[in-house]
Amino acid sequence: MFHDPLRILAFGAHPDDCDILLGGTAILWSRLGHQVTFVSTTNGDTGHYSMGGGPLARRRQAEAQRSAQIAGIAYRVLDIHNGQLLPTLENRWRLVEIIREVDPDLVVTHRPNDYHPDHRYTGQLVQDAAYTVTIPNVAALTPHLMTNPVFASFSDRFQRPYPFQADVIIDIDSVMPTKLDMLHCHTSQFYEWLPYNQGRLDQVPEDEHARKAWVNELWGARSRDLADTHRDALVARYGEEHARAVRNAEAIEISEYGAQPSAQELATLFPF
Amino acid sequence: MFHDPLRILAFGAHPDDCDILLGGTAILWSRLGHQVTFVSTTNGDTGHYSMGGGPLARRRQAEAQRSAQIAGIAYRVLDIHNGQLLPTLENRWRLVEIIREVDPDLVVTHRPNDYHPDHRYTGQLVQDAAYTVTIPNVAALTPHLMTNPVFASFSDRFQRPYPFQADVIIDIDSVMPTKLDMLHCHTSQFYEWLPYNQGRLDQVPEDEHARKAWVNELWGARSRDLADTHRDALVARYGEEHARAVRNAEAIEISEYGAQPSAQELATLFPF
Amino acid sequence: MFHDPLRILAFGAHPDDCDILLGGTAILWSRLGHQVTFVSTTNGDTGHYSMGGGPLARRRQAEAQRSAQIAGIAYRVLDIHNGQLLPTLENRWRLVEIIREVDPDLVVTHRPNDYHPDHRYTGQLVQDAAYTVTIPNVAALTPHLMTNPVFASFSDRFQRPYPFQADVIIDIDSVMPTKLDMLHCHTSQFYEWLPYNQGRLDQVPEDEHARKAWVNELWGARSRDLADTHRDALVARYGEEHARAVRNAEAIEISEYGAQPSAQELATLFPF
Amino acid sequence: MFHDPLRILAFGAHPDDCDILLGGTAILWSRLGHQVTFVSTTNGDTGHYSMGGGPLARRRQAEAQRSAQIAGIAYRVLDIHNGQLLPTLENRWRLVEIIREVDPDLVVTHRPNDYHPDHRYTGQLVQDAAYTVTIPNVAALTPHLMTNPVFASFSDRFQRPYPFQADVIIDIDSVMPTKLDMLHCHTSQFYEWLPYNQGRLDQVPEDEHARKAWVNELWGARSRDLADTHRDALVARYGEEHARAVRNAEAIEISEYGAQPSAQELATLFPF
Amino acid sequence: MFHDPLRILAFGAHPDDCDILLGGTAILWSRLGHQVTFVSTTNGDTGHYSMGGGPLARRRQAEAQRSAQIAGIAYRVLDIHNGQLLPTLENRWRLVEIIREVDPDLVVTHRPNDYHPDHRYTGQLVQDAAYTVTIPNVAALTPHLMTNPVFASFSDRFQRPYPFQADVIIDIDSVMPTKLDMLHCHTSQFYEWLPYNQGRLDQVPEDEHARKAWVNELWGARSRDLADTHRDALVARYGEEHARAVRNAEAIEISEYGAQPSAQELATLFPF
Amino acid sequence: MFHDPLRILAFGAHPDDCDILLGGTAILWSRLGHQVTFVSTTNGDTGHYSMGGGPLARRRQAEAQRSAQIAGIAYRVLDIHNGQLLPTLENRWRLVEIIREVDPDLVVTHRPNDYHPDHRYTGQLVQDAAYTVTIPNVAALTPHLMTNPVFASFSDRFQRPYPFQADVIIDIDSVMPTKLDMLHCHTSQFYEWLPYNQGRLDQVPEDEHARKAWVNELWGARSRDLADTHRDALVARYGEEHARAVRNAEAIEISEYGAQPSAQELATLFPF
Repeated sequence: MFHDPLRILAFGAHPDDCDILLGGTAILWSRLGHQVTFVSTTNGDTGHYSMGGGPLARRRQAEAQRSAQIAGIAYRVLDIHNGQLLPTLENRWRLVEIIREVDPDLVVTHRPNDYHPDHRYTGQLVQDAAYTVTIPNVAALTPHLMTNPVFASFSDRFQRPYPFQADVIIDIDSVMPTKLDMLHCHTSQFYEWLPYNQGRLDQVPEDEHARKAWVNELWGARSRDLADTHRDALVARYGEEHARAVRNAEAIEISEYGAQPSAQELATLFPF
Repeated sequence: MFHDPLRILAFGAHPDDCDILLGGTAILWSRLGHQVTFVSTTNGDTGHYSMGGGPLARRRQAEAQRSAQIAGIAYRVLDIHNGQLLPTLENRWRLVEIIREVDPDLVVTHRPNDYHPDHRYTGQLVQDAAYTVTIPNVAALTPHLMTNPVFASFSDRFQRPYPFQADVIIDIDSVMPTKLDMLHCHTSQFYEWLPYNQGRLDQVPEDEHARKAWVNELWGARSRDLADTHRDALVARYGEEHARAVRNAEAIEISEYGAQPSAQELATLFPF
Repeated sequence: MFHDPLRILAFGAHPDDCDILLGGTAILWSRLGHQVTFVSTTNGDTGHYSMGGGPLARRRQAEAQRSAQIAGIAYRVLDIHNGQLLPTLENRWRLVEIIREVDPDLVVTHRPNDYHPDHRYTGQLVQDAAYTVTIPNVAALTPHLMTNPVFASFSDRFQRPYPFQADVIIDIDSVMPTKLDMLHCHTSQFYEWLPYNQGRLDQVPEDEHARKAWVNELWGARSRDLADTHRDALVARYGEEHARAVRNAEAIEISEYGAQPSAQELATLFPF
Repeated sequence: MFHDPLRILAFGAHPDDCDILLGGTAILWSRLGHQVTFVSTTNGDTGHYSMGGGPLARRRQAEAQRSAQIAGIAYRVLDIHNGQLLPTLENRWRLVEIIREVDPDLVVTHRPNDYHPDHRYTGQLVQDAAYTVTIPNVAALTPHLMTNPVFASFSDRFQRPYPFQADVIIDIDSVMPTKLDMLHCHTSQFYEWLPYNQGRLDQVPEDEHARKAWVNELWGARSRDLADTHRDALVARYGEEHARAVRNAEAIEISEYGAQPSAQELATLFPF
Repeated sequence: MFHDPLRILAFGAHPDDCDILLGGTAILWSRLGHQVTFVSTTNGDTGHYSMGGGPLARRRQAEAQRSAQIAGIAYRVLDIHNGQLLPTLENRWRLVEIIREVDPDLVVTHRPNDYHPDHRYTGQLVQDAAYTVTIPNVAALTPHLMTNPVFASFSDRFQRPYPFQADVIIDIDSVMPTKLDMLHCHTSQFYEWLPYNQGRLDQVPEDEHARKAWVNELWGARSRDLADTHRDALVARYGEEHARAVRNAEAIEISEYGAQPSAQELATLFPF
Repeated sequence: MFHDPLRILAFGAHPDDCDILLGGTAILWSRLGHQVTFVSTTNGDTGHYSMGGGPLARRRQAEAQRSAQIAGIAYRVLDIHNGQLLPTLENRWRLVEIIREVDPDLVVTHRPNDYHPDHRYTGQLVQDAAYTVTIPNVAALTPHLMTNPVFASFSDRFQRPYPFQADVIIDIDSVMPTKLDMLHCHTSQFYEWLPYNQGRLDQVPEDEHARKAWVNELWGARSRDLADTHRDALVARYGEEHARAVRNAEAIEISEYGAQPSAQELATLFPF
């Protein structure tokens, strides 16, 4: 049913979202020779306090490319203005074309409920592209897929309308340092914009080593929270002993609108 | 409160959705002399692998008309491109006008959560038209309704954000053969597009009898699953003995955004 | 080439525009047994100083119907908000459907240059519908026309980008009183809104007879100006003697985007 | 963390929604010297059976201003057509600008699930404006907020996708007569449109005193239902004895997309 | 007919267009005590090669304010993204509100034909706002104008569909140094972006004096060309002798869609 | 100033427009080693009477590719629905990206006045992309052009608002047979849809030779008319003797919104 090597496609709303939410798992796939493509549905050109527009978009694209190189994956940044993404037909068709070109076994994106409108509308757009990818009369000049891929969501901490459900949870401890190297590429975000937005720009360390530790402390917290919150899922997947030791995890929730994988198929998709 | 005979209006996204999801109940209403109108919110012009555009739209409209004739109902196909339906004001007002012209006691449509974007946006549009139908300053040249009809949803199998709730479930065993005759009219769908999309185009039988059996096996499964999944609702409605015998069922969920019918009013709306 | 009786279709932006600009000619056609349809592309619901919305739309529709009765023509008011008309695909397709349903020999509308945005966008929409009416894959459920009708513009006094060219000019003296009766039906416009807008609400006469004289003085001026401005065209069409005597005229300019009628065909279209 | 006096901002879809859903609490804030701003995202120009358009919009704005005067708050009516509100970027940015200008500690609006499309899209728009208010590259000419305010929802009775959760419930008994005075200002709604829409226009009392009693009976029922439905929340907040005595209440649900207030911060925000 | 002092309103597409095209005349009006308001319909946030987004928008707004101070006029920058201006209803209504708030005797803007899409759509939007400003049912919460102002166009050098016609031409020699001071405020444009775009960034002088001379040479050329091209109009207005001596001029073309001023009214509007 | 070899880019609205309007000149460029790219801004999926949608789009793309092979040029078909092209920002940016990727010396397209809405909006979109291609803050991830290319229009026969002006006219007699071979590739158009639309489907010849003669007779007429109508331009360019002998010509009009080429630059751009 799946390609060998696997083909994984993730859509984040900004050029660092996929890294944060699926970066560790991407490294795991990549190290096993599978093909991972990250797509940012916007160019991130509003994510800063003292830059904006084209120069910021080009800077973020370059950051994404460096991160991709570290992970051994492909990264594509769509040139759609940050904060202006809407669930239009044009955007839907663009995602349909990208999904078809990649022909993935698994597509991961934001849930349509999330704190940032770009996240929500990315989730809605991918939902609108699911199944549509199999219809030859839509986006007719790009050959359609014969089967709907598996669609899934990144983890999040929102409880409404219902909490994220960790259908697959992945121990990323072995690649956590590399994931931090990925995040470290996004200088404009982790050392400039996000600290500014969170009111701690004055706390950003200067030297590289301290920066990575700082990112680990602040943003690694997510993967540690996830491991703690979904410890049961870790136990179910890795057994009690292994699961208890896991510090950092990533997880996905399978969508109802794509192919519904069997347990065995999930094992094939997540071969680690 | 209701018209006599009753007036029922269903909005499906494509020219076969109402048939699949409410065809049996429509036949039951029709046989008792009630008036049923099916509306397809799109013209279905992408639902094929080797046809498309105008010729397909016209073919599907003709299929819908034949199906309507079998059921003794009216069928209206809106000339909106399949896969291009969006919750615009223009579309909302169009639905407002149709609902007012029909002046129905009950309106049924897709839930806003479903696998196909056209289904979701049909659900959203009907939601946006509900209550609005009572406002004389909207779509001002079509006389407004004095009361909001009952709105309801077709059944589906999706669990999120919450599972379909069978507020009314209907035993359609007595009309199941006729419902299959309805589906049988949609040649372009049940013997061409859907088998292609599901990878079994080579299994489509040639002769008419075998085709109907095949449709029953594949698509009748829905009404049998529904009966099984919601056996409790069948028992509550029909009593233990009758309920246990039901093989095929259809069901609806009452929407919170329309009139809230009493148990007695539901009995009047579903007089079988 | 043309139907017998002829079928004439005019699109005005508001429920009195066709009356002002082509009312006299419509009466001439109608008296000879030809079929004339006036369409207002908006419902006119902003054309007043003390009313608005639905009540005004319904009032104006009723005024248009009375005017149509006097002229012996059909009048259709589209339920699009006055001042909100844009050249969208939805509106284009709606006009395509109407043109096809009427199947006219001649379509007349505003030039795309005019003082009111609704006039300009009506002109643009009809332009976008021209030729499109012959394409079976557009608005596929309404049978297409086999030939593009003749398209033409109402007269106006604007000079840029180029002045109106009176390709056909019509002596309407014989029906001028009836045309004034048509205008007289639009109470909300000629005795309320337009006087208010022009700062002479206090001059509106009370009794019916005086009102008609007043309308003739103010609005009949247009047809007299037209006769004066395009006296040469009158001479070319009617001969010197007749032309000199004409007091009231209406005129149209043939569009380059429809069928190009020969002199003889024009004579058939304008048989008076 | 919060301003002193507090700044509260509420977005209702129509010029009476904030009054109905948060009017009592607004009076409580106002009496303690805090600043409350109500914003109606539409001008309410369809909310009547015999008026509409501009005259109705202006009437409703005046009604809102009178209500605001009674409550000691500010009221702003956006000039967007009732029934035409959509979650566009233009509207999102407009709300971003308003939120920034007010610089509120708390923003309250409709949940995105509600019976009226304007309510739903107001909820969606405010959701889309949350967090965005902190991004300097969006709506760049209006200074951004350094921190995301607390966002919350008005109460409603809808159960899907999940029922309203009374995170804060407020005893408004002491100000209920003043709240009724606020509602009483909205003559066009409580004595004209809503009775018409609910089929009891003939029951509207003539004299002022009887009218207020009537409004209390019909619309005060909401705050009494709320107190009854969420008695537990009242007990948790006010203690058993006080809570049992509460007849009228208002409540809000804290949104996950704004700042997450501590119990102490909530106590500061709701100092009564 | 006109206010005393006069009220002049100009819409340019970017925060320097009005200065270039009407800056000299604005100074003349201002010195006589008349009120001039410049509006930029976009925030200019793409007009640079190494900056963009919010920081550029804020910089350009500040430049415009300095320029306005020099001229003694008001300057308003709309927060619409440069390069994203479209003739939407939202934008039309916004311009209607601004025109009504200023209540101008004369409105000047770009012709709808020009090399930059923002110029063209600004021209179209102002055209769509003309006359509309007198309709009380549009933008109903902002009091309408009782008469349509005079509308006019800035000069340009485009020949199609017809060349600019200098209905009024103004000798600006006496204020040319001050006009250059205005342009000089727009550092981001005249010394950075425009030289970059024209391939002469390396020629930009360093010191202020040389810069102004350079701007005069490059951009003053426009007003000198205009004087040369429309020398006849200068002669007609100023007499042979004066006209021959004019080196710098600005001019406008009266639009057909606003009030049509008499020669005397033009003399009142241009009292210099 | 120009690339060597030259780079020419033409935008037609449908997959045969460039061939008809610039096919001969394209062959001339191609034979001299210059690079020509044709782009169809729509996929042509409505251009037929018995087909439509995806199958037609794919057929037309294949026809265009065959035609391109004959001419020795590149052909790109955008997957935008025929009859649905609008001057949106999304489409503008797409054209900006294409123009930048090709980095052409000359861009040719439809005039914004033409009989087909897709032609008009293609003309408008290219106009909106002109100059914009030089702005680094627009479509920021595609490197901008340092200079605006020359923009020009295809010939047409429309007279309003002003007639096509043959700024450059090209003798294509030497390549006319090859141009006919190009047109011959578009079976769906020249032997099916266009004859149907023109009411002569029954006259289409069967064999290939007769077909080409038929196309020459019907569609070659355009290039012969052009030569006749613009004989003066031919004389100016080729001298009396040569010009008189020219039977087939193509021509372009230089746009005011691109670079303005000198006579010598035109000679470089049209080296034949």
